[in-house]
Amino acid sequence: MTAPSSTPPARLTGVGVGPGHPDLVTLQALGALDAADRVVAPSGAPDAVGRAESVVRQVRPHLRVERVVFPMGTGGPSSPASGPARELVPWLDAGEHVAFVTLGDPNIYSTFSSLASEVTRLRPQVEVTTVPGIMAFQALAAMAGVPLAEGTGALSLVTALDGTETLSQALEDPSRAVVVYKGGRHLPAMAKLLEEVGRLEGAMAGELLGLPGQRVGPVAELASGPAAYLVTVIVPPAGRVDG
Amino acid sequence: MTAPSSTPPARLTGVGVGPGHPDLVTLQALGALDAADRVVAPSGAPDAVGRAESVVRQVRPHLRVERVVFPMGTGGPSSPASGPARELVPWLDAGEHVAFVTLGDPNIYSTFSSLASEVTRLRPQVEVTTVPGIMAFQALAAMAGVPLAEGTGALSLVTALDGTETLSQALEDPSRAVVVYKGGRHLPAMAKLLEEVGRLEGAMAGELLGLPGQRVGPVAELASGPAAYLVTVIVPPAGRVDG
Repeated sequence: MTAPSSTPPARLTGVGVGPGHPDLVTLQALGALDAADRVVAPSGAPDAVGRAESVVRQVRPHLRVERVVFPMGTGGPSSPASGPARELVPWLDAGEHVAFVTLGDPNIYSTFSSLASEVTRLRPQVEVTTVPGIMAFQALAAMAGVPLAEGTGALSLVTALDGTETLSQALEDPSRAVVVYKGGRHLPAMAKLLEEVGRLEGAMAGELLGLPGQRVGPVAELASGPAAYLVTVIVPPAGRVDG
Repeated sequence: MTAPSSTPPARLTGVGVGPGHPDLVTLQALGALDAADRVVAPSGAPDAVGRAESVVRQVRPHLRVERVVFPMGTGGPSSPASGPARELVPWLDAGEHVAFVTLGDPNIYSTFSSLASEVTRLRPQVEVTTVPGIMAFQALAAMAGVPLAEGTGALSLVTALDGTETLSQALEDPSRAVVVYKGGRHLPAMAKLLEEVGRLEGAMAGELLGLPGQRVGPVAELASGPAAYLVTVIVPPAGRVDG
């Protein structure tokens, strides 16, 4: 694919639409959706409505949303975003402003980062911008009533995709709050670890935030059943748990 | 102060209004402002319009906003929120739903956490809720075009109010992105430390985000002049800096 020589300036904007609740979308995100020539959402299959598209449907019911399929899992040596990036190229070559919607924030644990890298590799002249979005852990902290950081306390975001080792390291400092993403498979192991270091009490988990079937509750309770891949866990600083 | 015996249920909602840009307010925050009986903003003096109030004025120009003065600095043994909390009590005792607006997110480095603690101490029956908000570092990442976390990478939020030691610890893991709040006074020391560990390149700073006088640029540049107390610094993971 070679870019045509005289194209209008194309733009790709990663639009964070928040964790799933339609009312956690920002005015800037709505403005980006309204201003774009084309709105694109990631999807697991051509006929599946992804979570970000579902949010768009609720805040902008009449907006047409294109889907690009992201392969699930970690198969193959190439970036999972290379296929989706190639699907965007004809629109960008036509000079369109493409808005790619993403759950949470496009700069933090988002598919948008790899998509933008691939698009920049294919079309270096495309202007890439982002619109920040509320992250799942912020919504969970609000729903669970758990302040996460105060004064000079630190807050770490880690993942538990590969197990609980990173969480274990983050827990070494008891004054630090910890957020764990992508740990659904390891939720029982996380609960065990939190109990060992005396921080199970007060730790909260949430899944399907803003969606039908949403569950928010203590890690101690949610760890006893099956959890979703995208479960979010928040562990407040030690010594801050009331009662 | 003793609570009257037959009061309607009072509520206190901490409403995150984002980093300063009016279009980074969420629909939920707007709904909370519209639904409240009274909107209250923190201020440095009775006649000073604080940053959160300024955001409210831009998104809801006709809304009346009460100010409660938070003493600056760390003087005295009592919580800086005890005075403001006492100011809210008469409204809460009258059964009002009070919305307290705060920059960023009310659960992360916000005056709201200590205010809510004080109110709960004075009036345990008051229902406390929060509405999450976009944080300054998210806006800075978007403006600077810096993805912060991908895959299984970690992200740490630390403060540099007391110096650069916490930052130094957070930098020990090169794969971890670091966000530094409240480090204005120590910006030159932070720049020196980042240079020593080879992570000055790509590190970005921002102050007065969304306000007149906003500055966003490389830490290397901003560190050469005076910076604001509320400067935000983002340090992407090592090895991710292009060029």
